[in-house]
Amino acid sequence: MLTIILADTELETMPERMVDDYAIRKIAKKSGKRSGEMLLDSNYMHTAIERSFPGESTRRGRPDIVHTFLLTSLESILNRSGNLRILVHTRNDRVISFSPSVRIPRAYNRFTGLVEDLFRKGKIVSGNETLMSVEDKSLRNLVDSFGEARKILLWPKADQRPMHTVIDSGKDLLCVIGGFAGGDFITDTGFIEEKISIYPEELTVWTVSGEIIAQYERALKLV
Amino acid sequence: MLTIILADTELETMPERMVDDYAIRKIAKKSGKRSGEMLLDSNYMHTAIERSFPGESTRRGRPDIVHTFLLTSLESILNRSGNLRILVHTRNDRVISFSPSVRIPRAYNRFTGLVEDLFRKGKIVSGNETLMSVEDKSLRNLVDSFGEARKILLWPKADQRPMHTVIDSGKDLLCVIGGFAGGDFITDTGFIEEKISIYPEELTVWTVSGEIIAQYERALKLV
Repeated sequence: MLTIILADTELETMPERMVDDYAIRKIAKKSGKRSGEMLLDSNYMHTAIERSFPGESTRRGRPDIVHTFLLTSLESILNRSGNLRILVHTRNDRVISFSPSVRIPRAYNRFTGLVEDLFRKGKIVSGNETLMSVEDKSLRNLVDSFGEARKILLWPKADQRPMHTVIDSGKDLLCVIGGFAGGDFITDTGFIEEKISIYPEELTVWTVSGEIIAQYERALKLV
Repeated sequence: MLTIILADTELETMPERMVDDYAIRKIAKKSGKRSGEMLLDSNYMHTAIERSFPGESTRRGRPDIVHTFLLTSLESILNRSGNLRILVHTRNDRVISFSPSVRIPRAYNRFTGLVEDLFRKGKIVSGNETLMSVEDKSLRNLVDSFGEARKILLWPKADQRPMHTVIDSGKDLLCVIGGFAGGDFITDTGFIEEKISIYPEELTVWTVSGEIIAQYERALKLV
């Protein structure tokens, strides 16, 4: 089993400080939502984020990154074959778990609506199955819960190694990837000893996860 | 060089028949666009599509599929290293070419705005560089322009073959993938002799392209 933790994602409901911002109230009114229950989204709230969190408007509020990551990883052959577990950790130490059979909406507005629903209810259920659930947990506690499994942090500043030398068997593996657009982890990741980089330049989140999944599929001889 | 043609994508400006539909006029007014210049988008115009094209509302108007495909393929290590060419063919026999250095907007609404701009102007230019351009061309003429290069059609109904036996060298290769959500090609693809399937179930468009790109990266020893 390959487990991927997308860490420090910028997925959060409206921060307290922004709930009464006039632009946020306007967006809430237009969409018929409560402003405190909306996801922070830099694509639509860039200026408002800058007003409340100067200098942070390109980093914060990026559900789009998580969306593309989920569309690619959960639609992979590795996931279809039952060998992938996906966990999304947020900047506020919340952890979202996904059933391998969850179908992520293709349309972005439906995806953000689903996550808002999840944050409100704690889980998304269909019939007897929990498709998504969220709990409060630090990255450290989450990673530690995997006990003795091999753990790797993907980190652009680490020494570069060819992917096929890193993953050469189908043994249980936990990979932690940063789920943000630029800059570095805000959570301390020093406790993960094995750190690697797979390319001389920074890659998008879903390129890194895609490369890991592709290599693990090969280790399992699925493709 | 690997060339991927995404064929029969559901990317089109508003069909004549729908330009005066009241729901389309309303969306146009709200977004400050001319209704005839907007992209058809099933995510927002589902009922209106059904009104004009009964039974086609889940297939037609799917810029979201092209968006995710471009985000994954153009951000790949293969593209970064200069070994990937992407072409998008549409249901109306238009072909979009992309510069390898184009940066596709992460936000969906910005992406659709960019494609609307492209369809209006014929190309998107930045400085001296053409980032995207569109021309009228059939799939057959497009594929034929690659001369003697090996050509493969990815087709769920073809015989399944393991990916590593299909792509075992870095020789020039042209792969044609269907760029639609379900059903079959509307364009005749019988002229492409080598047809393969890579998995017993249907996969999303970007999963297929991702697997091909991953295998070609290995053939070139890039990862």
